[in-house]
Amino acid sequence: MPDLAAIAARHTGSPFLAACRGEPHDTVPVWFMRQAGRALAEYREIRARHSFEEVVHTPELAAEVTLQPVRRYGVDAAVLFSDIVTPVQAIGLEVTIEPGIGPVIDRPLRTSEDIGRLRRLDAEEDLRHVLDTVSLLVAELDVPLIGFAGAPFTLASYLIEGGPSRSYTRTKALMFTDELTWHRLLDRLASITLSSLQGQIARGASAVQLFDSWAGALAPQDYERFVLPHSRRVLEELEGMGVPRIHFGVDTGELLGAMAAAGADVVGVDWRTPLDLARQRVPEHVGLQGNLEPAVCLGPFHQVAERARDVLARAGGRPDHVFNLGHGVLPDTDPGILAELVDLVHAEGVVQEPADDR
Amino acid sequence: MPDLAAIAARHTGSPFLAACRGEPHDTVPVWFMRQAGRALAEYREIRARHSFEEVVHTPELAAEVTLQPVRRYGVDAAVLFSDIVTPVQAIGLEVTIEPGIGPVIDRPLRTSEDIGRLRRLDAEEDLRHVLDTVSLLVAELDVPLIGFAGAPFTLASYLIEGGPSRSYTRTKALMFTDELTWHRLLDRLASITLSSLQGQIARGASAVQLFDSWAGALAPQDYERFVLPHSRRVLEELEGMGVPRIHFGVDTGELLGAMAAAGADVVGVDWRTPLDLARQRVPEHVGLQGNLEPAVCLGPFHQVAERARDVLARAGGRPDHVFNLGHGVLPDTDPGILAELVDLVHAEGVVQEPADDR
Repeated sequence: MPDLAAIAARHTGSPFLAACRGEPHDTVPVWFMRQAGRALAEYREIRARHSFEEVVHTPELAAEVTLQPVRRYGVDAAVLFSDIVTPVQAIGLEVTIEPGIGPVIDRPLRTSEDIGRLRRLDAEEDLRHVLDTVSLLVAELDVPLIGFAGAPFTLASYLIEGGPSRSYTRTKALMFTDELTWHRLLDRLASITLSSLQGQIARGASAVQLFDSWAGALAPQDYERFVLPHSRRVLEELEGMGVPRIHFGVDTGELLGAMAAAGADVVGVDWRTPLDLARQRVPEHVGLQGNLEPAVCLGPFHQVAERARDVLARAGGRPDHVFNLGHGVLPDTDPGILAELVDLVHAEGVVQEPADDR
Repeated sequence: MPDLAAIAARHTGSPFLAACRGEPHDTVPVWFMRQAGRALAEYREIRARHSFEEVVHTPELAAEVTLQPVRRYGVDAAVLFSDIVTPVQAIGLEVTIEPGIGPVIDRPLRTSEDIGRLRRLDAEEDLRHVLDTVSLLVAELDVPLIGFAGAPFTLASYLIEGGPSRSYTRTKALMFTDELTWHRLLDRLASITLSSLQGQIARGASAVQLFDSWAGALAPQDYERFVLPHSRRVLEELEGMGVPRIHFGVDTGELLGAMAAAGADVVGVDWRTPLDLARQRVPEHVGLQGNLEPAVCLGPFHQVAERARDVLARAGGRPDHVFNLGHGVLPDTDPGILAELVDLVHAEGVVQEPADDR
């Protein structure tokens, strides 16, 4: 096991960690969701020789693709290269990552009996390859490593639908017709997610992001009843581990308050909700991450610059803002644009002193 | 051409039209998006013998499936059975409606030159079958008929992506890289949409709904710059025709004000934004339509009833509320549940007197 105190000491001056905690720092930190991936030629080169699964399951490869965007863009944090379904693959579910589609489950979970197929995850045993990747990265990186896991709802939606979905009809059908089974399922998934994140933190991840990517498909009252308790268990049990917890999903404009209430230090906001509006929907002590429209980065840099300045302005110079896109980097993005964007955020972002009441 | 004054006179007491106008009426009106469709056995029976396209292109069949839910559910309005892409099919674009997928375009529009493939629509000529359906329905119906068209952005997204999409990347790429072509494309699509709706109104449709189903994929400032001017042209040019204009999309929590500003009498709200919140985002003179989570109707009726009462409560008894789902009826919905839901809304919905300042 690594010396966590030494790792923490190494990142004392990290603007990313300072922003997650709302503490004073000089430059606005920036990283990008899906910063490792197809936008980078050096990633595509590795993928030409190795499948997605091979990369995730080979620590040297997973570490290399995690490092690529840190070198290329000069971002303030690395994010573990992994997939939302990795932990359920690790306990024996047959999941294939189909290029251009996403995770596809051979035998979807749809009944009370199917839950039996989700056994407990022992992270050090079942996710050894992932945790070894974390160890390699922590030894190598000058910036903090963000651990990665899918939240119980988003995991459930993949397992129930059998793959990506537009309407999540089967997922919601289970939720609305068999609440007991639903909560049993989400409870198991919460345990799996928690174990995975605890394992990553124990190996030296300096922060975690809980991806509830598809929770925004839910009405607020359904989120609060069917999802929040399980995500809260994950986030609250991580609280004592001393690393910032980021909680993110798309389409979550009406859920931001609830996602903060689940126990987040920072709430990630997609591009639909301007940060000044988002600010009004989360408590004062919670930071915000986001939220440049990723597709803007497909266009010319002068437009990217204008929009990045708008994001910075709406963040209002608060010390608890982490600059990011509103969702993942699109594969067709020119990496040169992202590198320029990082420079702009560092050069132009102004961080005010934390208010006394924080 | 029909006697529009006689049709208007026939619907004088319509609670649906009164609510669209914020005028006094006794019961809360209700209809369902996609009320005609696979949830009904009588619809599936027709589709067992005829393709979707055959139904849309045969006035007797299209009229019959439009009438089916009116008979079955006792809703307060009929909505023309058609598809968003019908007008562009009518001017020669090769579009197939793939069951379970949606419209798929053989040769997507992606360049400035491709716009030349969109010629002007002459509704009476090109959409004769659709307008004949309207005429059949207007002669038959005791409730108002709602005309139907896709808004320019949503139409563009189908034409550019080549089919349904999750991220609308190609659509946004065109928007952000070639603004001139983008506006030319949307201008043509707006003309097509406008012509289709004008034709439907001239044949006796008593209201129209402009479906900008996927506009919610956009950040508010992008909606305002790239979409709003075109939807506004459609809605404003309809203003003089004297029928209420409903403007709807999903994921539009942050766009509701802009969608009202485009010239809507009523803004449709999806299930993500509670109506009391939505109310704060649109001007006082604009009504709201919605917004029960459609998936709730897959569960037991006691739960549907509880949620319908919540929608009614959040609508606050205002005379400008039209009850609806937050999106279309899901194919697996039990029609008996929807019939009970209509009865509940009629029995329990309370309509207050319009305020003096309206």
